[in-house]
Amino acid sequence: MTRLSSEDDFLAAIDRHFTNAHPHLCVGRGDDCAVIACPPRMAVSTDLFNEHSHFRTSYFTPGDIGHKALAVNISDLAACGARPLGFSLALTAPADLSREFCDEMLGAMAALAREHDVALSGGDLTRGDALSLCITVWGGPAPRPAHAAGVGAGGENGGDGGVVGEGSGTHPHPAVDGTSPFLRRGGCQPGDQLFLVGRVGLARVGLLALESMGAEAARLYPEACRAHLRPRPQVAAGQALAAICGAGDARIALMDVSDGLARDLPRLIGADRGSGLGAELAMDAEALPDEVRAYALANDLDPVDMAFTGGEDYALLGCCRPAMFDAVRTAVPGLTALGQVTADGVVQVNGDLPASAGFDHFSG
Amino acid sequence: MTRLSSEDDFLAAIDRHFTNAHPHLCVGRGDDCAVIACPPRMAVSTDLFNEHSHFRTSYFTPGDIGHKALAVNISDLAACGARPLGFSLALTAPADLSREFCDEMLGAMAALAREHDVALSGGDLTRGDALSLCITVWGGPAPRPAHAAGVGAGGENGGDGGVVGEGSGTHPHPAVDGTSPFLRRGGCQPGDQLFLVGRVGLARVGLLALESMGAEAARLYPEACRAHLRPRPQVAAGQALAAICGAGDARIALMDVSDGLARDLPRLIGADRGSGLGAELAMDAEALPDEVRAYALANDLDPVDMAFTGGEDYALLGCCRPAMFDAVRTAVPGLTALGQVTADGVVQVNGDLPASAGFDHFSG
Repeated sequence: MTRLSSEDDFLAAIDRHFTNAHPHLCVGRGDDCAVIACPPRMAVSTDLFNEHSHFRTSYFTPGDIGHKALAVNISDLAACGARPLGFSLALTAPADLSREFCDEMLGAMAALAREHDVALSGGDLTRGDALSLCITVWGGPAPRPAHAAGVGAGGENGGDGGVVGEGSGTHPHPAVDGTSPFLRRGGCQPGDQLFLVGRVGLARVGLLALESMGAEAARLYPEACRAHLRPRPQVAAGQALAAICGAGDARIALMDVSDGLARDLPRLIGADRGSGLGAELAMDAEALPDEVRAYALANDLDPVDMAFTGGEDYALLGCCRPAMFDAVRTAVPGLTALGQVTADGVVQVNGDLPASAGFDHFSG
Repeated sequence: MTRLSSEDDFLAAIDRHFTNAHPHLCVGRGDDCAVIACPPRMAVSTDLFNEHSHFRTSYFTPGDIGHKALAVNISDLAACGARPLGFSLALTAPADLSREFCDEMLGAMAALAREHDVALSGGDLTRGDALSLCITVWGGPAPRPAHAAGVGAGGENGGDGGVVGEGSGTHPHPAVDGTSPFLRRGGCQPGDQLFLVGRVGLARVGLLALESMGAEAARLYPEACRAHLRPRPQVAAGQALAAICGAGDARIALMDVSDGLARDLPRLIGADRGSGLGAELAMDAEALPDEVRAYALANDLDPVDMAFTGGEDYALLGCCRPAMFDAVRTAVPGLTALGQVTADGVVQVNGDLPASAGFDHFSG
């Protein structure tokens, strides 16, 4: 194993894996700043991916680390229905990080970047005791397909790539012709339909199995381990949902489920900001992923509770008016109806109050 | 001292110090992504500011940490002549970080943010053994004052907020009317004039004094300690230089001196990328800051060598054609002529080859 011996070594590794030419990169890496080409509005998000807090090198391969660090960031763009454009990477790396580790980590990150056509604009490198990847990602409004004119009246009155959401004091910005609005949380009402794109609970099973069995867990729970190690951001689904949104009630509230439904659902409906709303969820244990049910059975746990509290699946959690739900189902085939928003400020699952409150990376 | 006990505690602290309303913030903090209003081109940069690598809590106050973490990022925008618009903050914090520490750190960061009118769009928080701040900052082209039409022919032929520089395969993008181009490194020629905005060597003296004496150093070397702890990004000077740039030879190469002239000057003139250029610098020991000379005398060091190798002053290092230097001096009164670019691939200081090569945060 060869150690990365200098910042120049690392920059050379970056250049081996990431092209420095991209339609949205006017000046690429190698200057004080990159210069990026921007639509009038962009969605931007920053996520840390830190050893010990978010991953262990004992069972994450370098490729898993590189993939997931970028995937969790792209998932935030998916949650806004945005089109990913670029990202920056700040790496804190131990002195003994090998060239091979670095190449495998950057290679997997670059593969995901190519899949979503995002440019690496630059970043920073410093030594530290633990490995840490800090990524900031940005994206533009998704192109609106010609057949998806938006339900309702949105999109005609000029402006630029806009925002549809609760507004909370701000007037919602209609989207420009040809692009979809950015989606956000909130703006929900009692009776609204809640839905889920992707599955929940698997990544938590993967985490628990990997923590107790190490890499061996992949033999017993392959799908769950993969969900934890290599999450797939739901970019296409997010964009498809944005494409059917317009003004007024043709609106979808959307977020990604990173901390688990138990913590994230109240955020979607604004219960954490005093909306007073609740939800009544129907989660069929029989419909949960096989490995969630198997793990729960083997460990005397409730599979529905695992699915409700488990985080890091990066599914999309959405909410729309009941009249819009058919259009939602058509836009994203295979999504799951999850329940209804209620006025009583309480979240119930299958008629019961759930026991758990989910996970806080800081206090947890 | 009260500990920050949860992510919500931290977010409340953020909200106490940073407004969530800004003309360039369409959707502020609290969603999966912020939505930002963007000019057609933006300069973007990411810098880590890590305990042990970049600062010690033994002599950095929490306010110094908050200030410098943002200042070094804004300095990258200054180096491009850009106007700062927004930033994101990812914080890795030890479990015992107190509310008071956090308030003082964020307060100083917020003061600098207000000074430059930049919005905090969001970020992330995770626990870790060492304190780490990762900031990504973005900015737009600076407004071009009416009297600064640009020397030469630039700025008339449409396009958008553009880039002036060496191009390296890319055609330089002219600036739109009313805005200045972004400046970058390279494009230098033998005979070009090198200049410096701000002073060099002070921050290195501050670092050495603080490392050996701790906070006591501020009594002996107040200016040097302040240079190290609270650097001032040269935003106004960067914008003033961008304002006099156009196309063709009305061009300024610019960067900020973060790693010291010894390492950064070769980057400005492209010597690290095979330009084959060198430089002949004239650095008068008598003209160096008093505290650099005093520290060098007291420690049997060469003051010119300290000024040449010392990093983290965040001065701006520039280069222009000789015919443009009068305009440069007028745009930024008080800047220092540093020497000339040469064709011989060697950097000389006062006719000698310098001994030192500067500092690499990764291998150093």
